[in-house]
Amino acid sequence: MRISEFGGEPAIIRLIEGKYAATDDRVVLAFGDDAALVRASGGKLIIVTTDLLAENTHFRRDIIDPYSLGWKSVAANISDIAAMGGIPTFGLVSIAVPDIEVEFVERLYDGMNDVSARFGSAIVGGDTNFIKGPIVINVAQLGEVEEGRQTLRSTARPGHKIVVTGHLGESLAGFKLLDKFGFEAARTDFPEIVERHIRPVPRVQEARAATEHNRVRAMMDLSDGLGIDLPKLCAASGVGARVYVDKLPISSALKHAAADLDVDPTALAASGGEDYELLMAVDPSDVEAVVQSVEEKTGTTIRDIGEFVEGQDAVLVYPDGRETPMETGWKHF
Amino acid sequence: MRISEFGGEPAIIRLIEGKYAATDDRVVLAFGDDAALVRASGGKLIIVTTDLLAENTHFRRDIIDPYSLGWKSVAANISDIAAMGGIPTFGLVSIAVPDIEVEFVERLYDGMNDVSARFGSAIVGGDTNFIKGPIVINVAQLGEVEEGRQTLRSTARPGHKIVVTGHLGESLAGFKLLDKFGFEAARTDFPEIVERHIRPVPRVQEARAATEHNRVRAMMDLSDGLGIDLPKLCAASGVGARVYVDKLPISSALKHAAADLDVDPTALAASGGEDYELLMAVDPSDVEAVVQSVEEKTGTTIRDIGEFVEGQDAVLVYPDGRETPMETGWKHF
Repeated sequence: MRISEFGGEPAIIRLIEGKYAATDDRVVLAFGDDAALVRASGGKLIIVTTDLLAENTHFRRDIIDPYSLGWKSVAANISDIAAMGGIPTFGLVSIAVPDIEVEFVERLYDGMNDVSARFGSAIVGGDTNFIKGPIVINVAQLGEVEEGRQTLRSTARPGHKIVVTGHLGESLAGFKLLDKFGFEAARTDFPEIVERHIRPVPRVQEARAATEHNRVRAMMDLSDGLGIDLPKLCAASGVGARVYVDKLPISSALKHAAADLDVDPTALAASGGEDYELLMAVDPSDVEAVVQSVEEKTGTTIRDIGEFVEGQDAVLVYPDGRETPMETGWKHF
Repeated sequence: MRISEFGGEPAIIRLIEGKYAATDDRVVLAFGDDAALVRASGGKLIIVTTDLLAENTHFRRDIIDPYSLGWKSVAANISDIAAMGGIPTFGLVSIAVPDIEVEFVERLYDGMNDVSARFGSAIVGGDTNFIKGPIVINVAQLGEVEEGRQTLRSTARPGHKIVVTGHLGESLAGFKLLDKFGFEAARTDFPEIVERHIRPVPRVQEARAATEHNRVRAMMDLSDGLGIDLPKLCAASGVGARVYVDKLPISSALKHAAADLDVDPTALAASGGEDYELLMAVDPSDVEAVVQSVEEKTGTTIRDIGEFVEGQDAVLVYPDGRETPMETGWKHF
């Protein structure tokens, strides 16, 4: 049976996770979260995560420059470390490239190196290969977290508030602008929105500020978008969710971009991927303290957009009371 | 300038290593060895390594089955951990595949899982992706080593003996048999030699036995073949090397295969890659103890094939006294 007939990428992932999840007692958590958690002999928790990006599946060379591509490849992995409550430490980078310009490889590494350095991480090794085909970039990222501070997807409970950092939908808007107007024009006319797509800033400090005093009950990063990631968190925790559309954090920059794109900013915010913001479950009595800690320490806004409930459905609630299910899944196969 | 004009893969690797090697004091060793060495907060040394394999560059689906491909992908990384003197702990696997049979993916993971389990490692996470192009597999492997027991490439000195485990050239002979006779026939007629190519066994126990009592001065694994790897070790250590052709460990199985292939078994042993045997520098007074420890504990043969010398040339010495330089480099670009 071919992968497409079998149920595509999600079915393959379920198969792998079901069949190969390690049961070793050094493995605190394998698969199914933003990253795995393992225990070093000394007892320290190490976070490990990896992401592979293939040209034309995950990126297009006509709408991202090599420096930004490098930045974004590592940033996505650092975001997974942040989502576990941890601090990034080391990265390993493998690339497979056809016979392209050397400058492309240099700029790619410049971007990877700069975002690593910005978050206290270092690229310590890797592998460089030829491929007769699309460019492939694989990043494996390590991080550390204090015992007890790790934040999982499986621990949200009914009654917890749904809290998100920053603004949503901007990365998808940036992609659409790049696709519609081309790299140079889009970058000139909408620098902030395009920057959000090509050079996302992982929310490491925000996650650390939020997880102080153990006030975050569950957390993940928004890599596929609220419409896909929130249902994932709900499934992992066995809860449902209600998100209020009028509470979605939408910036004025997004509204301007959405007008030029002739799309609904709410749809961008509810479904857009690659924002790399944090999605948290927080006890109602702790929301104010979490907001204050994150905003004071990082300057990043953070807000409550709804609540986790009994059940298993994640719904969007409109101001008129109408409810719609959040969209689920996108397919590469 | 294109990569091919710039000097190919080796030049790109030098560029990356020269420009991006981390200088952070938590980084014991970045790039340029079999794996990187980093320090966890508790002081423990963690070994990290990664390898990317692309279809038609590194493997061909017509001459390796999916189970063996999975086994070999992880075995090559575990071999790098062994070469640092360490023990493998955890692996992360990323794959990018076109719309192939699901069973291919399952068998691939079966092989990866089995070789991990055999050496006490566990696959703890990864990433699964679609690619419009060749299959790509990336493995990132972690390991641990006791402080002071790590074995590098840069610490061989003139006077040290060159010591290798097992037999050389068998993996290349296996590849040639598979290429000439096809998968089924080659596997039926030359099971041992073909097995060496498709399911190499990393020398973890052998490395641990050899490095007891700190008796190995330098070590690496033979992934590209003696003719490429020994010059790399010489360059890292600033030494030359003399290898005696009549001391090369050649099995009778290799001789039989070489006869059927109409090639010189010595050439296979001196230049064949992917044997994943260990290449060591050992003080002459310690050779006997190292040989005894490895052979008693593992049953794997190990022998002295020459010595490191002043200078920078690695040469093969024939029984008649004639000397030839070891071949260097192979090119993907």
